[in-house]
Amino acid sequence: MDRLIEAIDNAQNPSVVGLDPTPALVPPQVVASFADEVRDSVEDESEIPAAQLAVAYFEFNRTIIDAVADIVPAVKPQIAMYEAIGPAGVDVYTMTCEYAQQQGLYVLGDIKRGDIGSTAAAYAGHLSGVAAGTAGEDAQPFDPWHEDAVTVNPYLGTDGITPFVDAAVQSDKDIFVLVRTSNPSSKELQELDLANGGKLYERVADLVEGWGSGSIGDHGYSRVGAVVGATHPEEGAALRERMPHTFFLVPGYGAQGGTAAGVAGMFDADGSGAIVNSSRGIIGAWKKSGEYRDDMSADEALALVASAARRAASDMRDDLRVNVYR
Amino acid sequence: MDRLIEAIDNAQNPSVVGLDPTPALVPPQVVASFADEVRDSVEDESEIPAAQLAVAYFEFNRTIIDAVADIVPAVKPQIAMYEAIGPAGVDVYTMTCEYAQQQGLYVLGDIKRGDIGSTAAAYAGHLSGVAAGTAGEDAQPFDPWHEDAVTVNPYLGTDGITPFVDAAVQSDKDIFVLVRTSNPSSKELQELDLANGGKLYERVADLVEGWGSGSIGDHGYSRVGAVVGATHPEEGAALRERMPHTFFLVPGYGAQGGTAAGVAGMFDADGSGAIVNSSRGIIGAWKKSGEYRDDMSADEALALVASAARRAASDMRDDLRVNVYR
Repeated sequence: MDRLIEAIDNAQNPSVVGLDPTPALVPPQVVASFADEVRDSVEDESEIPAAQLAVAYFEFNRTIIDAVADIVPAVKPQIAMYEAIGPAGVDVYTMTCEYAQQQGLYVLGDIKRGDIGSTAAAYAGHLSGVAAGTAGEDAQPFDPWHEDAVTVNPYLGTDGITPFVDAAVQSDKDIFVLVRTSNPSSKELQELDLANGGKLYERVADLVEGWGSGSIGDHGYSRVGAVVGATHPEEGAALRERMPHTFFLVPGYGAQGGTAAGVAGMFDADGSGAIVNSSRGIIGAWKKSGEYRDDMSADEALALVASAARRAASDMRDDLRVNVYR
Repeated sequence: MDRLIEAIDNAQNPSVVGLDPTPALVPPQVVASFADEVRDSVEDESEIPAAQLAVAYFEFNRTIIDAVADIVPAVKPQIAMYEAIGPAGVDVYTMTCEYAQQQGLYVLGDIKRGDIGSTAAAYAGHLSGVAAGTAGEDAQPFDPWHEDAVTVNPYLGTDGITPFVDAAVQSDKDIFVLVRTSNPSSKELQELDLANGGKLYERVADLVEGWGSGSIGDHGYSRVGAVVGATHPEEGAALRERMPHTFFLVPGYGAQGGTAAGVAGMFDADGSGAIVNSSRGIIGAWKKSGEYRDDMSADEALALVASAARRAASDMRDDLRVNVYR
């Protein structure tokens, strides 16, 4: 987790921008501008909308990344948004990750994978890359995903997590395990009271702290982080005490209702220990700017996307600096 | 679930072949045979092993599908194995799904996705496809994934499941929610005793039965199935009683230790209610055939892959017919 913590310190900003494009979050003239370009690349007319969105998503993401790269330490692309348009979307996900890394950003792939041991080992290829094979044992593995960390689901237990931890250690990367998610229904399972005391998410929290115990870095945090939603301020503060070596990824700020005051308890006494995500609040800021017009050109719309995202990212940084970060 | 149940009845075979290729499961001469073909398609030497595996995986899968398509009703590609080699692998995953559907097979995409509501809605695009957009409201959505069902993780609760259920209903497809997985560590969370009685996986089971209550089909089973590992025969039999409208996907037969006798309790009184998966036992049968030789050509090796897979699939069918299926 050291690389992330140092990136946060360099930017003096414990926030991450969620790159979660949807058809509604990309200005329509940007999507429309790629209509001709994609027509030749598809096999069938029906593929055009997806192909057009894929190209538009990359252009949109690049615009956001360029606008915020000197403000934020990290981005968090949510792979679901890309899978929604098929394999062409997955390509754009990896292109986005690669471009963000090239701009010096730490890339947190929000993939929420999880499976039994042998299958988790395959998913851990997200971090470890593909062995160079015939190119010789000294050759670097090929890294098709360009992620610095991924999110992982704990429901399958330790043997589904260990392969990710091993891959993270080998490749100087990190994972974040779902502990307490930000959505309303998260309480249905995560808050269940256990017969031996405590709640399910607390048991998961203890497992996560244990999974990280072999990889504690220079800043006191392990390579196994936890996802703790901003929508649970009191539980988050209690988890901060309970998991002293576990860095938190905190989604749910802004559009989902989390506030800087609410996430304050998820930071440690030194103002470290957590990074707060905002997606729609930043990448969709152009929609609330009051400056958007239907008759804008694609370039004008992207310029507004950039300026609004930069303003929102800067506001979020300042909000967190005042309230939580020291 | 009606389409799957009818496919099982047509084949008189409640089994599904897991298409989970790994570098060790594809004969090396098959991988080597694509060395020249991929050289021109990559940007960098380091990409060659992944590109070669991707092409080899498709050839391998096509061979298996052709060998078993008249024996089994369904295949279950595990997307992790494809993600392990990057976006080129994801392309091969969708090509495999498409080819299997073209051969009349029901395709169960083992993707184990799960996220908060708005994100789950994006993942549900696996089932619903991409809206046709400007092509008009009557146009069919574009289906890039070619899956008839997907597996889903329940840790985020109802709002992470509902979008998948809605998509399944709209597109005449199904989902399978993880309840009791086949791996050793599954007990760490899934077997936790709850304060109000019962175990966590039983609570998940009750939720799953409820999530399916609005989509019960002609055969008495809903569109929301459950993943119940073959390695838990007694719990599986108890879950069969507890979840009368929930069809089971049963992994863990064969290589993981599950037997036909062990899965018998997961079937209902009519011999329906479950489909049993085998992956390595079928796609890796060539390795245990005693007929493989290092000096075989790629075509000879693929012919052995086919004959061994067909024999193993046929043996599994007969084993299940004798012991569980009526």
